[in-house]
Amino acid sequence: MTIKAVVFDAYGTLYDVQSVADVTEQCFPGYGDVITQIWRLKQLEYTWLRSLMERYEDFTTVTRESLVFTLRSLGLPQEPSAIAQLMDRYLRLDPYLDARSTLEALSQYQRAILSNGSPAMLRALVKASGLNDVLDATISVDARKVFKPSPLAYTLIEHVLGTAPAEVLFVSSNPFDVCGAKSFGLNVAWIERVRPETLARNLGQLDRVAPLTFFQILRTQLDELGFAPDHRISTLADLPAIVAG
Amino acid sequence: MTIKAVVFDAYGTLYDVQSVADVTEQCFPGYGDVITQIWRLKQLEYTWLRSLMERYEDFTTVTRESLVFTLRSLGLPQEPSAIAQLMDRYLRLDPYLDARSTLEALSQYQRAILSNGSPAMLRALVKASGLNDVLDATISVDARKVFKPSPLAYTLIEHVLGTAPAEVLFVSSNPFDVCGAKSFGLNVAWIERVRPETLARNLGQLDRVAPLTFFQILRTQLDELGFAPDHRISTLADLPAIVAG
Repeated sequence: MTIKAVVFDAYGTLYDVQSVADVTEQCFPGYGDVITQIWRLKQLEYTWLRSLMERYEDFTTVTRESLVFTLRSLGLPQEPSAIAQLMDRYLRLDPYLDARSTLEALSQYQRAILSNGSPAMLRALVKASGLNDVLDATISVDARKVFKPSPLAYTLIEHVLGTAPAEVLFVSSNPFDVCGAKSFGLNVAWIERVRPETLARNLGQLDRVAPLTFFQILRTQLDELGFAPDHRISTLADLPAIVAG
Repeated sequence: MTIKAVVFDAYGTLYDVQSVADVTEQCFPGYGDVITQIWRLKQLEYTWLRSLMERYEDFTTVTRESLVFTLRSLGLPQEPSAIAQLMDRYLRLDPYLDARSTLEALSQYQRAILSNGSPAMLRALVKASGLNDVLDATISVDARKVFKPSPLAYTLIEHVLGTAPAEVLFVSSNPFDVCGAKSFGLNVAWIERVRPETLARNLGQLDRVAPLTFFQILRTQLDELGFAPDHRISTLADLPAIVAG
């Protein structure tokens, strides 16, 4: 297997979706963690449901609607100024600390993002984080009007980069994305950021669970969907060695 | 609008998915609630993900795989005897107390189930609950090899009953199912079993949330997907009055 392109998921993989927690806490004191987790859980649910209902709307809409759901279901006011502040934070998510150095170390390969994000969101995100000069392409599923893990979304890699699935290493921390990419036929590296031991330790009392732990149980552990990644890594910095074989 | 058929979702609508909690607690003392909630959350996630990945497997498989995921992610042993006991409980879910009397009161209409359940699961469930004599049809999405809320799943109502969407009242407590049915073009009644006030009261401390409350936030409140039900009711017994207009 010769890898010609390394393609990254954006949200949760190159960029830390948990980094909105400062603004959620600032806008709604005491609710920072629970808003952050429910928002992200519903955001992804809505990408799947809208795709399945054949009612695609872009990730900007889905992100706003899942935030509105979150505030409403927690009994919080849906103040336009707070919503605007939170939506804006999503355009400036913190990249993981090893994102830039990893992309730099992979300069001999095609380097791209394939993301659920809308073109406008991804443009803002890549610019704010200064990663534009270490990426050859930023691909949004918006061109196919369907979200991952639909196989149609993954066809965009070959369409844009001209690189066949067998020559692509796709990198994601999101288990559903790992399964979707593998089912489509890409080589896949899964970033396992939350180890089962950590989860078991954080669980503690079972009658009341921290929202972050709940999120980590639901969305960071490998799914039972009949597919497994080719590589399991713990951080982006492990990638160059894997791509070199 | 003249209603000729009343079609019910099964899991969560006619049958209480929370009724597995006695066996989850018996098999894994202390973990009853957290297993019950994560199992159900992942079970539905997997129906959406498999549909979107074009990797349909029936609801028996999805239910078993989501249970295996739940036990693994909680660091619990995946004992075949416990898994068999829990899977068996899913075939004998408790019907809601007003399920039978509501179906009896609707005897002048066609009465059917449209469910994600596999034909074998639904056959067992309807038989165990004794509702077979008050249902004219039990329809499984399995015939279309895709789960709700895909519009294809809802086409089965007309296909089996011969009744056009405009003459069908679809009943579900599941917000995603309400949106899917409405998007497809059915008349829809939503059973709102958990009121926002109840949720706000149950939330309590925000740093640690009861698993049931977490589930209720995520999956019992109306979704922001651009669709709203025609009728909001609080229990099945409210239906006869609505159908009569």
